[in-house]
Amino acid sequence: MAMEAEASPIVTRLGLISDMTIFPSKSTPFKAYRGSYKDCNLVVITNGKDNVHGTGVDNCGTVPAALCTFLALQRLNGVVDIVINAGTCGGFQEKGARIGDVYLTTASAYHDRRIPIDVPDFVAYGIGRIESLPVHKLSKEINAKMGVCTTGNSLDKHDIDDQIMRANNASVKDMESAAISWACRLHDIPHFGVKVVTDIVDGSRPTEEEFLENLHHAAQELEGALSKIIEYCCGRSLDEL
Amino acid sequence: MAMEAEASPIVTRLGLISDMTIFPSKSTPFKAYRGSYKDCNLVVITNGKDNVHGTGVDNCGTVPAALCTFLALQRLNGVVDIVINAGTCGGFQEKGARIGDVYLTTASAYHDRRIPIDVPDFVAYGIGRIESLPVHKLSKEINAKMGVCTTGNSLDKHDIDDQIMRANNASVKDMESAAISWACRLHDIPHFGVKVVTDIVDGSRPTEEEFLENLHHAAQELEGALSKIIEYCCGRSLDEL
Repeated sequence: MAMEAEASPIVTRLGLISDMTIFPSKSTPFKAYRGSYKDCNLVVITNGKDNVHGTGVDNCGTVPAALCTFLALQRLNGVVDIVINAGTCGGFQEKGARIGDVYLTTASAYHDRRIPIDVPDFVAYGIGRIESLPVHKLSKEINAKMGVCTTGNSLDKHDIDDQIMRANNASVKDMESAAISWACRLHDIPHFGVKVVTDIVDGSRPTEEEFLENLHHAAQELEGALSKIIEYCCGRSLDEL
Repeated sequence: MAMEAEASPIVTRLGLISDMTIFPSKSTPFKAYRGSYKDCNLVVITNGKDNVHGTGVDNCGTVPAALCTFLALQRLNGVVDIVINAGTCGGFQEKGARIGDVYLTTASAYHDRRIPIDVPDFVAYGIGRIESLPVHKLSKEINAKMGVCTTGNSLDKHDIDDQIMRANNASVKDMESAAISWACRLHDIPHFGVKVVTDIVDGSRPTEEEFLENLHHAAQELEGALSKIIEYCCGRSLDEL
């Protein structure tokens, strides 16, 4: 999870305890919380706060997300069954998204890595589409929608982003999924995303306004969805999801 | 260095040998070459080729660059004096840049992380400006220009990129510097960039055309500049640069 505000409800609900042995290096700002539910071991990781630029804000975006995921999987080598990338997102109303909706990802792809050199295929590398673990039964069980998550390092978007997000067939938009998926693929670990809609990408209001207004409520929604997901996934094999 | 084409002339010139003990994990695509010059130990690392999306192209962009840099510094903990981020770039003619020019970086910053939430300061986090090690004596010695490098994940750019690149006061534009600088700062290792101009950002020709036309020649220029930089830096303390 990228932000503390997104993580804190589920950390509290499950009684997870801070465990910095997962990120032993003093070089990283990342945080980890550990605990269990029934016979499942759970680890929540967050990107921590910015101590490089001195802003103290959450380390959102693709670079910290990929590094945090990679290092956690390296440290927990051999004991991770699945990565669930949980967070908030923008939703596309033309795909039926509404504020508060819970989405499970079918795939992730970038909309801000435009590399228009097609021989060899830098275009496809730039888009960087990665399929999620199929979780259709889970989505039915928890009554979640499903769709592609498009990723970029900006909270807002402009005309060219719009074109590429549409080409990505995106239902939701975030700032981390494609990078987390890449780090999971490097370690060959199954993954999917659970995303709660805080704002409408193709609506009339500025993203930052809607995002701030709905972040707190969405984090509560996310905790509810994650609880159901953990309940359903624990004790089930991947192909039962 | 991001691309094999950028790295290969200097690897050959210095007779560096592939050393995969620096990236022992099979999870990463990164490559390392090791050797020495006079009494200096040298390691060249590259981002390797894309094996996740199946394109086989160089893993360019911020995410692989940050992970590659972080892991190499973690592995070489305690023995790295300086990181030199070497590669090609676009140049701004309004700042006096011409194709083939060699630039040393004074700072790096992002132009594609727009996070318009200013309390707390997500805007500054998004821009992510990081100062380079001051290398004014070196720049005089090798007759290089100096300036800010602006970083984004796209080879091309659009109007909003233009505005932010100008606000960043950029002389050159690349796809990795800000991310590499961040990874260096996490490890508290001094760093600067050496960048050879392949294309004019604020000119009339499409970036990808000029880039492909000039990449080979720029890689040769880069090898020449790096040889002079290594010659000058070896045996000198950081404040002599």
